[in-house]
Amino acid sequence: MSAGWFRRRFLPRGPLPAPQPPRPHSSPVPYRRPRFLRDAGSCPGTADAPSLPEARPVRCPARSRTLPWNAGYAEVINAEKSEFNEDQAACGKLCIQRCEIGAEEDQEWLTLCPEEFLTGHYWALFDGHGGPAAAILAANTLHSCLRRQLAAIVEGMVATQPPMHLSGHCVCASDPQFVKEKGIKTEDLVIGALENAFQECDEVIGRELEAAGQVGGCTALVAVSLQGKLYVANAGDSRAILVRRDEVRPLSSEFTPETERQRIQQLAFVYPELLAGEFTRLEFPRRLKGDDLGQKVLFRDHHMNGWSYKYVEKSDLKYPLIHGQGRQARLLGTLAVSRGLGDHQLRVLDTNIHLKPFLLSVPQVTVLDMDQLELQEEDVVVMATDGLWDVLSNEQVAQMVRSFLLSTQEDPHRFSELAQMLIHTTQGKNDDPTEEGQVSYDDISVFVIPLYSQGQGSNGH
Amino acid sequence: MSAGWFRRRFLPRGPLPAPQPPRPHSSPVPYRRPRFLRDAGSCPGTADAPSLPEARPVRCPARSRTLPWNAGYAEVINAEKSEFNEDQAACGKLCIQRCEIGAEEDQEWLTLCPEEFLTGHYWALFDGHGGPAAAILAANTLHSCLRRQLAAIVEGMVATQPPMHLSGHCVCASDPQFVKEKGIKTEDLVIGALENAFQECDEVIGRELEAAGQVGGCTALVAVSLQGKLYVANAGDSRAILVRRDEVRPLSSEFTPETERQRIQQLAFVYPELLAGEFTRLEFPRRLKGDDLGQKVLFRDHHMNGWSYKYVEKSDLKYPLIHGQGRQARLLGTLAVSRGLGDHQLRVLDTNIHLKPFLLSVPQVTVLDMDQLELQEEDVVVMATDGLWDVLSNEQVAQMVRSFLLSTQEDPHRFSELAQMLIHTTQGKNDDPTEEGQVSYDDISVFVIPLYSQGQGSNGH
Repeated sequence: MSAGWFRRRFLPRGPLPAPQPPRPHSSPVPYRRPRFLRDAGSCPGTADAPSLPEARPVRCPARSRTLPWNAGYAEVINAEKSEFNEDQAACGKLCIQRCEIGAEEDQEWLTLCPEEFLTGHYWALFDGHGGPAAAILAANTLHSCLRRQLAAIVEGMVATQPPMHLSGHCVCASDPQFVKEKGIKTEDLVIGALENAFQECDEVIGRELEAAGQVGGCTALVAVSLQGKLYVANAGDSRAILVRRDEVRPLSSEFTPETERQRIQQLAFVYPELLAGEFTRLEFPRRLKGDDLGQKVLFRDHHMNGWSYKYVEKSDLKYPLIHGQGRQARLLGTLAVSRGLGDHQLRVLDTNIHLKPFLLSVPQVTVLDMDQLELQEEDVVVMATDGLWDVLSNEQVAQMVRSFLLSTQEDPHRFSELAQMLIHTTQGKNDDPTEEGQVSYDDISVFVIPLYSQGQGSNGH
Repeated sequence: MSAGWFRRRFLPRGPLPAPQPPRPHSSPVPYRRPRFLRDAGSCPGTADAPSLPEARPVRCPARSRTLPWNAGYAEVINAEKSEFNEDQAACGKLCIQRCEIGAEEDQEWLTLCPEEFLTGHYWALFDGHGGPAAAILAANTLHSCLRRQLAAIVEGMVATQPPMHLSGHCVCASDPQFVKEKGIKTEDLVIGALENAFQECDEVIGRELEAAGQVGGCTALVAVSLQGKLYVANAGDSRAILVRRDEVRPLSSEFTPETERQRIQQLAFVYPELLAGEFTRLEFPRRLKGDDLGQKVLFRDHHMNGWSYKYVEKSDLKYPLIHGQGRQARLLGTLAVSRGLGDHQLRVLDTNIHLKPFLLSVPQVTVLDMDQLELQEEDVVVMATDGLWDVLSNEQVAQMVRSFLLSTQEDPHRFSELAQMLIHTTQGKNDDPTEEGQVSYDDISVFVIPLYSQGQGSNGH
C-alpha cells in the first residue's frame, strides 16, 4: 500500500453527539464563512495553508473493534451547516477471512490480519443530513457489514467460477453449466455483498438512532479494491470519476428525486396512502395555483418519460411529491436525495408522512477492471461529496488533476495535496478558480485514489 | 415520400380470425419448413425467388377507417407456429391536424389529408403470441391512437418550446422559465404521445378481445418520422438499429423477463398474492430440487444486481417467477416477453394466476435527431421481430446492409430487396448465410427504412 495518500482527516468517529432538534432539510442553508477542520501536522499538504484562520485540529481516536486502519486522510470542509460536520469518511485495508455469517466477529477478525485470506482496500464518503449522527454510524459500521458479507462468500470468490453450492456440495453434475449460462461471475458476488452490506448497515443505523433518540440520514459512496477490480457502490448524490491521461469516466450515477422520479411516483401510485392526501403524485413544471384550475397544463405521471397535457383538477393543486429542479429538487418538500442510509424517523414537517418508504438503501455498483486498463502512475479515481460537483464539472476536475499531477511528479504527498487543491478551488482559495467563479458553501470531502498501486499486485490473494 | 420502399405485404388487416384454443406459450414450437407469404407480383424483389414452393399470395384490403396508407410492404415469413401468421405490421403517412381528444374522429381526419397541419411517417411491427388476434388489432388500431394523441398536443409541438398551458392561456409570466428549467422540449411531447398511445391501444385490445371471446398478445415496435426526428418506441423483444457507413447504433432495447427481472420481482415482493403460493420470487441458476434443501445456493432477489448465497428452504423449491435464460427465459413459465399489448386474459396453464399485472404496455422511446446526422443515401434503420435477431447480430446485419446497398446503387427497389435478403439469410436461402449456419423457424418481419428521404425536408410543416 502506498504510504503518502492513505491517511485520514475526519471528525472523531466515536460516540454520537448529543441529540439536536432536527433541522428542516428543505430550509436554505444560512451563509457562513467556510471553516476548515484539520488534523494539523499530520498531513504535509495542509501545513502551507496559513490563510485559513479558523482551522482547528481534530484527532481521530483509534477504535479496537474497527478494521486495522493503516492511517487515512481525506480533506473535509465544514460549511457550518450544523455544529458538527455532516460529512464523514472512512478508509482502510479490508482483510477477509472465511467465516460463517453469525459467527462471533471478534474471533474471526484480528486487528492485524495475520492470516488474511483476501485483502483489499476500502474508501467511503458519507454526506449526512439532519445532523451527523447517521454519517458517523455509517463510517463506524459499513465496513464491518461489508467484511461480514464478503467473508460469507469468500469461498465462492476465490473459485474460477462461483459454485452453485457453497462449501463444495455438488448436488447436480450440470450445476457449473447452469452458473455459466446465467453468466454469474466472481464480481457478481462482490456486487451482491455490497448491496447486502448497505442494507444491513441501514438496519443497524435505524436501530441505533432509535435507541439513542436521534435522527438523521446520509448518502454513501464506497470504493473497494479487490482482486484487481475496483467496485464503486453509490447510494445518494456523491460521485466518483476515473481520470486518466485521455479519458474521464463516471463511475457512479446520482440518485435524487429527479433521477428516480418514476420509481418514486410508481410507489405513490401503488400506495396512495403514503401521501396522506397532502401531496399530488403528478409532476408539473411549477406548482399549480387556483388560476390554473380547468386549464390544460403540462404534466407527467409515473409511466411517462415524455410529457403530456391534462386539464387541471382540484387535487392537482396539492404540493407535488417531487418539486423543483436540479439542486432545488425535493422529495416531499424535504429531502434532496432518494437513496442513502438512515432517515427511518424522517417525516414531512408538521405531518405524519414518512419519507423512508420512498428511499432506497441499495447502492448501484459499477466495476472497473483494473487489470484491463494498462494503468499509468497518474491514473486516479476522484471520489467527492456533492459540494464539489455542484461547482466543478467532471471535465474541469480532470483537467485540474492532470495539470496538478504533471507538475508534482516527485512529490510523495501529491495525491493528498491534490484532494486539498480541489477543495480549496471550490472555496475560491486557488489561483485557478472555477470559470464561472462559483463557490460552494456545502460540506465537501474528497478522496483521490491512485490506481497504479491497486493494479500492481495488491490483490493479496 | 420515396416510392420504392413504402409498400406493404401483410396478412389481411380485416376482421379477426375465428377463436382458437389458446396454445401454451411455453411449449416448444414444432419444427416445420418455413412458409413464405407473398403478395405476388407487387414486390419486385420476390419475383425472383422461385425456390420457395409454399409461397401463397395474400391481398391486403384497404379499410376506409384507417389512415390513408400510401401503400406499404414488409417482408413476412410465417414459420407455421399457428394457422395464421402471428407477425403483423403497418406503415403509412401520419397526418396530424389540431383536434380535441374526444371529438368525433371522422370529422377531424380526412383520408387524403388535404389540410394537414403536420405530416410524418409511421412504421410498426407486431409479433403476436397465443394467436394473431392482438397483433391484427394492434396493426389496425395503434396508429389511430397515436394520431389522436398527437392531434391533442399539436399546438404545443409547433411552438419553439412547449407552452405550460395549451391554447395560449398564460397564467403566470414566468411559465416559460419553468418549462425551460425542466428542460421540456417538443420531442418530450411526442414521447409522451407515444407512451399514451400504446396504453390506449392496449385498453382497446383488451376490450375488443374480451367482446370477441378471443385471447392473445403481441409485442410492438414503432418508428415515427416527424419534424426531422425519428422516434422509436418499443414494448417487447423486437429491435431497431441504425446502420450507417461507419456506425451501428441500437435504437431500442429488448424487454424480456430477464431484462426486467428486478421490476417483476419487486412487484411480486409488494403483491405476493399475485403468485398464489405457486411460484417463488427468487432467482436461482437452475430450478431447485429436494436434494438442495438446507444447502447454501446462489440466488438473487428484487433489490440485487449481484448474486449471493442463501440456505434453501422448502418454499424455494417452487417454480421460479422467472426461469431459464436467453431465449428460454419465461415469465411464470409462460411468456417470453415482459412488455407488449394484450394478454388481458392470459393465465398460467391450469391455474388462476394472471400474467397481465407483470406486463407493461408502456414503450421505451428513443429519439434520433436526423437533422444532426448529415445523412447519406445508404443510411437506414432496420426494424425486425426477434426471429431475425436470434440468428443475426447487429454487426452482421450492418455488414450485410452495407455490402448489399453498395452493389445495388442504381436499383430503385433495393431497400425492399434488402429486407427480403435479410429474411432469406435467416432461412439459409442465401449464399451469405450466418457464420454459425443458424436458421430461424420463427415468424420474421423486417422493415428497411432509408433515412435520407426522411431527413430531407419531409417534415410537412
